[in-house]
Amino acid sequence: MNAVEIIKNKRNGAELSENEINYFVSHYVKGKIPDYQKSALLMAIYFRGLSDNETLFFVNAFINSGEKVDLSNINKPKIDKHSTGGVGDKTSIILAPLIACFDIVVPMISGRGLGHTGGTLDKLESIPGFNVHLTIPEFVEILEKLNVSMIGQTSSLTPADKKIYALRDVTGTVENIGLITASITSKKIAEGSEGIVYDVKVGNGSTLPNYKLSKELASKLLKTSKDFGLNAIAVLTDMRSPLGYAIGNWYEILECIEIMNPQKKNSPLSSDLYEVTLFLAGAMLKLGKKCNDIDDGIKLAEEKLLSGECFNKFIELVKIQGGNIELIHHPEKYPKASIMQNISAERSGFVENLDALTFGLATVELGCGRKTIDDNIDYSAAIILNKKSGDEVNKEEILCTVLGETEEKVNTAVNILQKGISITNIKPKLKSRIIEVIN
Amino acid sequence: MNAVEIIKNKRNGAELSENEINYFVSHYVKGKIPDYQKSALLMAIYFRGLSDNETLFFVNAFINSGEKVDLSNINKPKIDKHSTGGVGDKTSIILAPLIACFDIVVPMISGRGLGHTGGTLDKLESIPGFNVHLTIPEFVEILEKLNVSMIGQTSSLTPADKKIYALRDVTGTVENIGLITASITSKKIAEGSEGIVYDVKVGNGSTLPNYKLSKELASKLLKTSKDFGLNAIAVLTDMRSPLGYAIGNWYEILECIEIMNPQKKNSPLSSDLYEVTLFLAGAMLKLGKKCNDIDDGIKLAEEKLLSGECFNKFIELVKIQGGNIELIHHPEKYPKASIMQNISAERSGFVENLDALTFGLATVELGCGRKTIDDNIDYSAAIILNKKSGDEVNKEEILCTVLGETEEKVNTAVNILQKGISITNIKPKLKSRIIEVIN
Repeated sequence: MNAVEIIKNKRNGAELSENEINYFVSHYVKGKIPDYQKSALLMAIYFRGLSDNETLFFVNAFINSGEKVDLSNINKPKIDKHSTGGVGDKTSIILAPLIACFDIVVPMISGRGLGHTGGTLDKLESIPGFNVHLTIPEFVEILEKLNVSMIGQTSSLTPADKKIYALRDVTGTVENIGLITASITSKKIAEGSEGIVYDVKVGNGSTLPNYKLSKELASKLLKTSKDFGLNAIAVLTDMRSPLGYAIGNWYEILECIEIMNPQKKNSPLSSDLYEVTLFLAGAMLKLGKKCNDIDDGIKLAEEKLLSGECFNKFIELVKIQGGNIELIHHPEKYPKASIMQNISAERSGFVENLDALTFGLATVELGCGRKTIDDNIDYSAAIILNKKSGDEVNKEEILCTVLGETEEKVNTAVNILQKGISITNIKPKLKSRIIEVIN
Repeated sequence: MNAVEIIKNKRNGAELSENEINYFVSHYVKGKIPDYQKSALLMAIYFRGLSDNETLFFVNAFINSGEKVDLSNINKPKIDKHSTGGVGDKTSIILAPLIACFDIVVPMISGRGLGHTGGTLDKLESIPGFNVHLTIPEFVEILEKLNVSMIGQTSSLTPADKKIYALRDVTGTVENIGLITASITSKKIAEGSEGIVYDVKVGNGSTLPNYKLSKELASKLLKTSKDFGLNAIAVLTDMRSPLGYAIGNWYEILECIEIMNPQKKNSPLSSDLYEVTLFLAGAMLKLGKKCNDIDDGIKLAEEKLLSGECFNKFIELVKIQGGNIELIHHPEKYPKASIMQNISAERSGFVENLDALTFGLATVELGCGRKTIDDNIDYSAAIILNKKSGDEVNKEEILCTVLGETEEKVNTAVNILQKGISITNIKPKLKSRIIEVIN
């Protein structure tokens, strides 16, 4: 067996064997197969796809490349959620503590922002002191205490996936359903989850360009998860415009605090975030066998949210992972961005669309995300929406506010944003963010 | 412009611009784009192909990455021949000195054996002392004196192609018509040729698997050459069985000496080699305007061969490039292989096929070719055919003789060869090796 023959087999359309996939992954992780052969294989996979069998073999090879989180001592359901990535998508921040209130363990291992999409880790790290780099034993200990912990992928967990993902990112081989599935599923299995709700985003703010591909991904995620004995539900949600009103790390935490803290009032601009979060919570509770259907779960989840239990759990979580609680109680003390610029409506009418991809790209320019691995994040930078798709707007009324560190960055973002906003004369029909549930 | 965007554009089926191709090639050669991005692009090109424009841009980028041989001071036609690679294909050894006898300059820059196919450089280096590593000025000086010189690709000539070819070889991205065309054509233009005869092999001993692809390659080679103002003829020739009777470096030189030296008798088993060589010579003479059509050229070429002029030119060439003339005159003094084993017919009948790919792979096992770049070549190793496709054979009559350094190597080769020999009851119809001429 050698690397070139395996590349050629895949290139020619053959199904790779378990031996071939194990050989390639294990030798690659050990540095015995060079990056240039791996990237050639990845591009061949991009064109040829991965069969269900090949996907399973990759998942296994990824898991076996590192250690697994052992949660067998915790006699509770272990349920996680995974989002394929969106703009303003902050549901994890609320969901993790919320579901933990039901005596369900949520072992959440999240990622950073990628391209135009935000990352849960970056959002958590906007809370000063919050430590996402825990060891596996520390992670398990917190899960035992609180039912919830939120960390980043450790080097010991699916290291093969970590190394291959980094290569995919710089070789144009991210957007393949088989590879995406293997990457996500292997991490979820390795972190010890027994059930997963997949939030598969649809629309140009997501990582896949169209509904068909998103649906295909959802089906493949479910099939692969179930092949490994996991319970899973996939929810297709609309990601054509930003979710909630805030895009930018600290301001997204702030929007979540408003929803979780019963003493604060939710913004009406957060209603879509509220809807998606509760729906995903309902699905997680169903997987955790706390209710019979998602609708019942939604009701249970809303009660915990309104009672303040979820907020208390969130504060416990922030505290135990080293985050500054004072700022959670008094977010107004957070450092402000130096520059602020409003974008106003050029004419009266209705907001037709706030294009999620455009808003995501603008936040990267502001420093909410990274262009290269070494970029620093500006946690105070954000775009704050004052109107959402479908809202009526008068000429010169503020549509959104752009917050950043320098005039240059803010101007760049404002210029980008102009192309992502459209106003129409006819009130657009608003649909639910929940497109479809597959299980 | 950045590498990932260019990879994605190609991957998505866009036609790359001249700027994008120049950017990628020039940055790659300078080491500013890593191998893993280049191999991802190459695999995307494997699947998407190269348009005529993209091929031209690659040819230009390859040429511009190094220097060009300037033959403008030599006021003679400059005509070369290129073979896409076969088994027992030794026509270059005869053609180069033969065409030089007509006051045509043959600036032949050749390659080494690759996979199951042999390489002109390896054959020349089986002549003790023969130096294929000349500088460009030395190459030009010999061309001025003799009209012919045969060397390997120098590091200053199309270095981008050289670097990319090495990467293609280990990433399963060799077999693409656009990339093959760009690689061949750029070298031929850079070496100073004004006209080229392409010997495009067809059949499983060639580098492309079927007639359709070989024909496509021939057309692309012609189109690209003509776009650069070169005269070109493509000849599709049959490579289903080895050409001539010898496969293995020194024995191939020996077979050529028999054909060139009027004092020696040609083996009847060389008749196909004789036919192809003279046909290609006719095509080269036509490009060099020494005759009106290929048939006339064949007659002129045969005269020079029979008169001994070609052999004298060959001796001059070997001498000026440092080779041992004594062995050309007395080839029987060449060191012999230690082990010899015959393969005999298991039954009487007619040789149906001697499978070129199998024979090529067996010679690699013998040490006639390399499995890795660092392997040493055994110049005395060879397979000597005693029968050719279509020949009548009696039970136990010798079909071929395997010569090698160790019993192990010879046994391995013999085992491989058994699968490549078939005997039939009905005399197969023999066709000409010349399948088609395109110009």
